[in-house]
Amino acid sequence: MTAQGVILGTIHGVGLGPGAADLMSVRADRLIRGARHVAYFRKAGAQGQARRIVDGMLAGDATEHPMEYPVTTEIPLSDPRYNAALAAFYADCAARLTALAQAGHDVVVLCEGDPFFYGSFMHLYTRLNGGVPVQVVPGITGMSGAWTATGQPITWGDDVLTIAMGTMPEDELTRRIRDTDALVVMKIGRNLPKLRRAVAAAGRTDQAWLVEYAQMPGQQVRPLAQADAVAPYFSILLIHGQGRRP
Amino acid sequence: MTAQGVILGTIHGVGLGPGAADLMSVRADRLIRGARHVAYFRKAGAQGQARRIVDGMLAGDATEHPMEYPVTTEIPLSDPRYNAALAAFYADCAARLTALAQAGHDVVVLCEGDPFFYGSFMHLYTRLNGGVPVQVVPGITGMSGAWTATGQPITWGDDVLTIAMGTMPEDELTRRIRDTDALVVMKIGRNLPKLRRAVAAAGRTDQAWLVEYAQMPGQQVRPLAQADAVAPYFSILLIHGQGRRP
Repeated sequence: MTAQGVILGTIHGVGLGPGAADLMSVRADRLIRGARHVAYFRKAGAQGQARRIVDGMLAGDATEHPMEYPVTTEIPLSDPRYNAALAAFYADCAARLTALAQAGHDVVVLCEGDPFFYGSFMHLYTRLNGGVPVQVVPGITGMSGAWTATGQPITWGDDVLTIAMGTMPEDELTRRIRDTDALVVMKIGRNLPKLRRAVAAAGRTDQAWLVEYAQMPGQQVRPLAQADAVAPYFSILLIHGQGRRP
Repeated sequence: MTAQGVILGTIHGVGLGPGAADLMSVRADRLIRGARHVAYFRKAGAQGQARRIVDGMLAGDATEHPMEYPVTTEIPLSDPRYNAALAAFYADCAARLTALAQAGHDVVVLCEGDPFFYGSFMHLYTRLNGGVPVQVVPGITGMSGAWTATGQPITWGDDVLTIAMGTMPEDELTRRIRDTDALVVMKIGRNLPKLRRAVAAAGRTDQAWLVEYAQMPGQQVRPLAQADAVAPYFSILLIHGQGRRP
């Protein structure tokens, strides 16, 4: 309760899963359909993938709170202005959500995949947590959607699975790809040529798959060797483990 | 269609998620409630965790097909009889499911977590695939349930996440724990003392959490240093990444 006697609302960080609406959890589905306030990140001017997944699910009287990224690719990651702009943005979003909760409103924040796995919601979570009640609903990760799309299990028995980002330096990627049974690489996009060289240097090109838009319209599953030169943002590279099996 | 003109049924490998019934996907929920034939693995004499999760969800006229493991811990993993007994068991289960599909029945196979992530269903899948139609529904992994329970994101920015099994040799575990940002270890049980030594040797005891029965009744989240000497089968060790964040 606040000093004014209002019962605080709860901020729900809700995992939507990899993309198909019926791959979100029953708990997520119920929260989203019942929500009076729905917030989500998007690039300025775009609908955004999170909002697209819940198309047709929101109540007629739900209020939407788009949170539009101030920068995406215009400023390089290494520029200190990138971090400063994002930090100010997340602080502003957290303040908006806090104001809603303090006015007694529950808010559902839509999160692609799983909120605590490389997600943007985490940047709000650390700023909200402690101030107002926050609940997190886990989701099916994009990588689960991707390996399911390949029709092959990702790990068997005692396989080691390494999850790495395409943004890593090439020699470090090569070392990691050599030193694991199963592999998932995310954040590929324009890093694909570098990633391709790293997979080749590790001698594993013939085991690698590229999945684009897993569990979304336009899903594509291809051996890495047959993939295009550029990958969309929603791309995941996989190498399946071949561990112990009776 | 079979030679007899019967339309083949489909075997659905359905991920149940980490344990709470409302953390399964909407698709899984719908398939399970509508199923006329439901199969699941269990230890002989036990109800089994998969069957427990769907308690109260099955149709009154659903036929249940428990598949009881012939061995669990009585024969050591290294004994060739262990593999032989399991291989015969999976072949027998696959034959039973194939017979149902050939008679025109759809069958839902209940799978804890995600079917393609260290799951038993994979051993049926490789034996069924090609013979009868098989569909896989991904699920929220047990590890997502565990990191959500800790109230801390598992990975940020460009963190590397390593997923390893507690069954690995101690020096190999130590090396992997040293060489990663974020860590998940599963299959702990009686490997806990060894795992504890490996975490200590890597100098990361103060960063490690043990989650028991994530998203199930009896959930416990504790720093590894405060955990008991023995961990139940449903235990997951986590070290959260501390990567880049604005």
